[in-house]
Order: sequence, then structure tokens, then C-alpha cells
Amino acid sequence: MVHIKLEDLLPGGTGFLEFRKDAAKPLRELTQPLLQGTNTLTESERELIATVVSNKNEFFYCTTSHSSAADVYYGGDRITQKVKNNIETAPISDKMKALLAIAVQVQESSKKVTKQSIEKAKKQGATDLEIKDTVLIAALFCFYNRYENGLGTFAPADPVYYAEMAQRLKEKGYHRPKDGYNDLKNKIYE
Amino acid sequence: MVHIKLEDLLPGGTGFLEFRKDAAKPLRELTQPLLQGTNTLTESERELIATVVSNKNEFFYCTTSHSSAADVYYGGDRITQKVKNNIETAPISDKMKALLAIAVQVQESSKKVTKQSIEKAKKQGATDLEIKDTVLIAALFCFYNRYENGLGTFAPADPVYYAEMAQRLKEKGYHRPKDGYNDLKNKIYE
Repeated sequence: MVHIKLEDLLPGGTGFLEFRKDAAKPLRELTQPLLQGTNTLTESERELIATVVSNKNEFFYCTTSHSSAADVYYGGDRITQKVKNNIETAPISDKMKALLAIAVQVQESSKKVTKQSIEKAKKQGATDLEIKDTVLIAALFCFYNRYENGLGTFAPADPVYYAEMAQRLKEKGYHRPKDGYNDLKNKIYE
Repeated sequence: MVHIKLEDLLPGGTGFLEFRKDAAKPLRELTQPLLQGTNTLTESERELIATVVSNKNEFFYCTTSHSSAADVYYGGDRITQKVKNNIETAPISDKMKALLAIAVQVQESSKKVTKQSIEKAKKQGATDLEIKDTVLIAALFCFYNRYENGLGTFAPADPVYYAEMAQRLKEKGYHRPKDGYNDLKNKIYE
């Protein structure tokens, strides 16, 4: 449901970021180093955090976008899909399971993160910075999911859109393309 | 409960922003124009949105900080406290009631904002931009509440702290002070 006209109805996050460029600039400057900057968490692990939170928030656009981005890093959807189905039985490290449990607590409520879950992650080898970045990424996607849904952004159903976007994110990052989104504007997605 | 050591245990948002300065910079650049920039919503109205969302999230630090900031603009807590008690009966405009209802929907879930609540706000005279900024501020405080709580930041109980901070926010905004927070580090709050 589109509540408010977005610029040329660009899909999801792309559309809402174009809608208010002064807010988009700091948001991109926050997101880019957090998801793709130097970090002891891999890009795929950080995309998994974004995926799990968006999936729990039942927000289709972000879930599909960041699942696709994680798939690009993993070289297929074997891991991403299993994580979405069940974190505990997915083929990821115990450290990542503990960090994703923290992400889920952040998603559920601003009061949910427990000392026990922090201690568990530390016991599995997570550093303070990894725990903090997990909380930050999870909280950021609670923001993105709410902002995009609140604006009623357009989410294509076509999987080709997400596969192309994931590849673009990997190659060019979360920056705004210098030539804008003219390539997207000329495409029609269902 | 402090999960992770913050720099010199500075309180709440101040503490977590100091903890990771590269994330703090874009967050401040997002928050400053949104809460204090030119807008058809007054500063007090925008602080009310931050207050209502933080209150619903039961996050003491942000609720008290932004209540105090709203109080500074309103010249007392008569309006802020009534809004926290009951939006519908508070002495604010019907437009603000409709916008705060949207903010509450954003707080509750990433799926909650309804076409009906948007239409109601428009009927009460809210512009598209006011609705969008309400969603953006509400989503941003869902982020802040989760991030700060996830890091287990220190929240003073002392009302003097919040009154002083509110005055500083009004006078100097959400920018980082050029000389840092040495004044805060020398103070002890309970």
C-alpha cells in the first residue's frame, strides 16, 4: 500500500531515500561502513543480521533485499534460507548463533537484551565490538523496516529485482550511485 | 545494567555516541535537522513524538530526556505529562493527536501504520511531509531506544541531569560540543 507518493515510485529503501535526500545522506554514511566497512564480522554475517531482523519484523522488501545480498556473499541461498528457518540448526558458527539471538532480542523490544545473551556471545568468542555492532545493525533495521513500511514503499515481487540489487550492493555498496537511479526508472518490476 | 564499558560511563545517548564516533557523526547529522531544523512541526511537537515513542518503548533515558526537552519549549511539564498520560485528552491540536497516533503505530510494529491513520492525519490538516517526518522521528527513536538499551547505557535518576541536558539541547542542539563532554565527566549523577 503506497501511502505517500515517492519519487517515480522507486522501490523500497531506494524510493524512501530519494524522497528525503537530506536524511538519506547520513543514513547512507551510517549504513555503508557498518555493513561493508572493515570488521571482524564478515559482510555475509552482517547481512544475515539485517535479514533476521527484517524477517522477524515481517518486512518483505528488506528481508528479500538483505537475504539476496547475503546469498551473493555465500554463493547461494543454502545458508541464508536455513538461518531464516531456524537459527539454532543453521550451518553457522556458535558465535553467530549467539549474536543473532541478541539481534532477535533487539528486534523484539527495546527492553529485551539480557545480560545472559551478552555473556553467551562473549563465551562463544564474540568481542565487545562485535556485540555492539550486532545491536547497532539490528536497531538500524528496526528503524529501516518501520520507516519504509510507514511510508508504504513499493516492493517488487520479481526476484530478478532483488538479485540485481544484491549484486549492485556488493559491487558498489550502499552509496548513492553518482548518476542516480535512471537505470531503475527505465525498468518495470511486478 | 551496563553490559559493555562505555567511555567514562557518560550517560545514555551521550555515552553510546561517544563509544563509536564514526556512527555518531551521521546519527547526529540525521537527528539535528530532523528535530531542530526548519519544519512546519514545532520543536516541541517533534520532541513530543520522540517522547511518546520512547515512553511506549518504556525506555527511561530517552523518555526523560525528550520530555525535559519538550518541557523547555512548552515552559513546563503541563502538556508533556498529559500527552504521556493520554494523547486523546491532552491539550494539543487534533492534528498532533493524529500524528502521535501514527507515531504509536510505528512504535508498535513495522507493519502497523494504516491507511486510515494516514487519512485521519491528512483530514486534520497534516501535510505529507509532516506525516513522513512523524514516521521518520518515530522510527529513529525505535532505533535509539534499542541501541542504547542494547548497550546497557547508564541512565541517571537525578532530574537535574535531564533539566540541564534539555536546556543544553535547546541552546546548542544535537551536535557534539566542540570541547566534548568534560563538563559532564566532572559531575556525579545518581
